[in-house]
Amino acid sequence: MINRQWILTHRPRGMVQREDFERREAAVPSRPLEPGEVLIRYRVFLCAPTMRNWMDAQSNSFYRTIDLGQPVMAPAAGEVVASADARFPAGAHVTALGTWQDYEIIDCEARGVAPIAEGLSFVEAMGKFGLNTLTGYFGMLRVGRPQPGETVVVSGAAGSTGSTAAQIAKLKGCRVIGIAGGEEKCRWLVQACGIDAAIDYKIESVRERLAELCPGGIDIFYDNVGGEILQAAVDNMARHGRIVLCGQIATYNDDEPAEGPRNMMRIIYGSIRIQGFLLNDYGNEFDSALKDLRAWSEAGKLIHREDVRRGFDTLPETFAALFTGQNKGTLLVEIGDSD
Amino acid sequence: MINRQWILTHRPRGMVQREDFERREAAVPSRPLEPGEVLIRYRVFLCAPTMRNWMDAQSNSFYRTIDLGQPVMAPAAGEVVASADARFPAGAHVTALGTWQDYEIIDCEARGVAPIAEGLSFVEAMGKFGLNTLTGYFGMLRVGRPQPGETVVVSGAAGSTGSTAAQIAKLKGCRVIGIAGGEEKCRWLVQACGIDAAIDYKIESVRERLAELCPGGIDIFYDNVGGEILQAAVDNMARHGRIVLCGQIATYNDDEPAEGPRNMMRIIYGSIRIQGFLLNDYGNEFDSALKDLRAWSEAGKLIHREDVRRGFDTLPETFAALFTGQNKGTLLVEIGDSD
Repeated sequence: MINRQWILTHRPRGMVQREDFERREAAVPSRPLEPGEVLIRYRVFLCAPTMRNWMDAQSNSFYRTIDLGQPVMAPAAGEVVASADARFPAGAHVTALGTWQDYEIIDCEARGVAPIAEGLSFVEAMGKFGLNTLTGYFGMLRVGRPQPGETVVVSGAAGSTGSTAAQIAKLKGCRVIGIAGGEEKCRWLVQACGIDAAIDYKIESVRERLAELCPGGIDIFYDNVGGEILQAAVDNMARHGRIVLCGQIATYNDDEPAEGPRNMMRIIYGSIRIQGFLLNDYGNEFDSALKDLRAWSEAGKLIHREDVRRGFDTLPETFAALFTGQNKGTLLVEIGDSD
Repeated sequence: MINRQWILTHRPRGMVQREDFERREAAVPSRPLEPGEVLIRYRVFLCAPTMRNWMDAQSNSFYRTIDLGQPVMAPAAGEVVASADARFPAGAHVTALGTWQDYEIIDCEARGVAPIAEGLSFVEAMGKFGLNTLTGYFGMLRVGRPQPGETVVVSGAAGSTGSTAAQIAKLKGCRVIGIAGGEEKCRWLVQACGIDAAIDYKIESVRERLAELCPGGIDIFYDNVGGEILQAAVDNMARHGRIVLCGQIATYNDDEPAEGPRNMMRIIYGSIRIQGFLLNDYGNEFDSALKDLRAWSEAGKLIHREDVRRGFDTLPETFAALFTGQNKGTLLVEIGDSD
C-alpha cells in the first residue's frame, strides 16, 4: 500500500505556491504502536487559514511551525486502523491534528485525538460542527459577549467562523453587519443567514459603509481579516467596544507581520478592548458548545455551508484558494483511496 | 481684580511650544450665577499628559478639544467664591475640570465639580489622592487584574500613575519591573517604592532587558508610554497577558496618530487582551478607591511624590516639561495671588 504525502519543501514567500510543496509516496507505517498511539487513515482535511502561519519560520513562541521536509500539518478527520489506546479502538472515527498524508501513526494526547459524535459524518465533524464553527461560537460569546440591541460587525462574514459568529450575534438580539467579498456571499449572508446588512469590500468603501450603517458606533467587531478592514472598524468603534481578534487573513501571505491599528489613543479614549483568543482556551467547554450548535442547527436557526473538494492531489491548490476568497464556506478536502 | 488667562492660540505641531499660548488679562467674571453654577478661584492645576491631545484639532469623537482662543482646559483644585449650587457653598474646596485662569464661572455638573475630602490640601487632592493616582488604581486593579506571582511591567513607572500602578501590583503579590528614564527615577522605584527591578530606557535596550528580566513572559503590561516601548512589551508578553493602555505619552507630540503593535498575530496566538480605559469609567467607585489609597498611604505601603511648581506664568513651560521627563512625580502648578 502506498502512503501519499504532501511535504513542505520551501517556506512560502508571499502568497503560498504549489512549488512550496512536493508530493511524495512512502510506505504505510508498519512499526509496532507504542501505548497511547493509533494508526490513523485520514479522510477529510480542513483548510484552515492559520496553517499559513505554521508554514513560516519560527518567529514567535506561540506559533506551531511545520518543519521543512515534513508533511503539512492540518486539522483532520479519519478512521483508526490500528490502536494502542483503548479510548480509540480500530474502526473509531476521530478528529485530530493530522498531516497531509493517507496514513500516520500519532500519539493521541499530542495530536488531540477526539471521538466524532454519534451520527456525524467526517465532513460534518470538520465542517458544520468543526473547529471553525466552535471558534465562531467561543469568539462571539466568550470574547465579544454580545448584549441585546448592540451593533455587531463581522469581517470574513461568509466564512464558516464568520457566519457562525454573525448568526450567534443575531440569536443574542444584536444588529449584525457582515463584511464579505462578492455579491453572492453578501446575498447569502442577508437572505440565508438573516443578518441585517452586508458590505461587499470588493466594490464598496468599508470605512464609509461602516460609518453609514453604524451611526452609533460598533459595539463588537469580530475580525477575521485584519489590515485596512481592522483599521476602518477601529475608526468606527463605539465607546466600550470590543474587538475580537480571531484572524488576520488579509496579512498571512505578507512577509511583514500584521500591523495593528494606527490610532491607539482611540483605543484608550474609547475604553476599547482588543482581545486575541485561541479555540484551545475553551477546550473544556466543547461538549456544551456542540450541544448548543446542534440544537440551533436542528431548529434551523444556524446555517452553515461547506465547500468540499475532492482528491489528495488538489490539497495545495485548494489550500491556496482560501486566500483569494474562492471558497464558499468551510473549505474541506475529502480524500479517497485513489483520488 | 485681574483675571489672568493662558489662551490656546495655535494647535501645536510636534512638541508643544510656549508660542502656542498667549497670556491675557481679563476682568473677573461678575455676571449673576445660574442655578448649578459656582464662581471658582483656581489654586492648583494638574499638568496631565492627556491635555496635549485636547490641544489637537478634533479628529476623534472620543476626545475633548480645546477651542482656539479659549483658556487651556486642565484638571484643577480651588475654592468656591460664590455659589448657586447648595452642594458647594462659598468657601468650599473642590476639584473640577478647570481652565488656565484665576477665576471662572462653571456649571458644576458639566465640569465634574467634586468636594475635596476633609483634611486634604489642594496639592494632596490633586497629587497623592488625585486623578493620576486613581487612574493607576483602577487601571491596575480593574483592567490589569493582577494575580499573586504574576510578572508585571509598568512603563512611565516613575510618574504618579505608573508608580501607583506598580506599587499596587506589589501589594497584590506580583513581581514588578518598572521602565523609567534616568538613574534617579530607577533608583527611587527600587529603593523607595520597593519594586523588583527598573529599566532605564535612556541607556538600556528595553527589549533585551525585558527578555532577560521576564523569562516566562509579561503577564500584565501597564503602558503609559506607547511607541517602541509598547512594541518591545508586546514581543515579550506571556500567553493570556493583559496590556493596560493608560497613555501613549511618547507619541502625543507626534503629528501622526500613535501606532499600534506591529504583530497582531502575536496578540491572537497569545490570547492577549489590550484594553484602553478612562478614569471616568469608574466614576462611581472613587470613594472606595480613595479609602484604599489613604489606608495604604497611611500604612506606608504606597508612596507618592509631587513635583510642585509655583506661578501662573510658568504654566506653559511646566506643562511642556512633562514630555521631556523633567518632572519627578505628579506635576502640579500652584498659583498665588501675584505669582
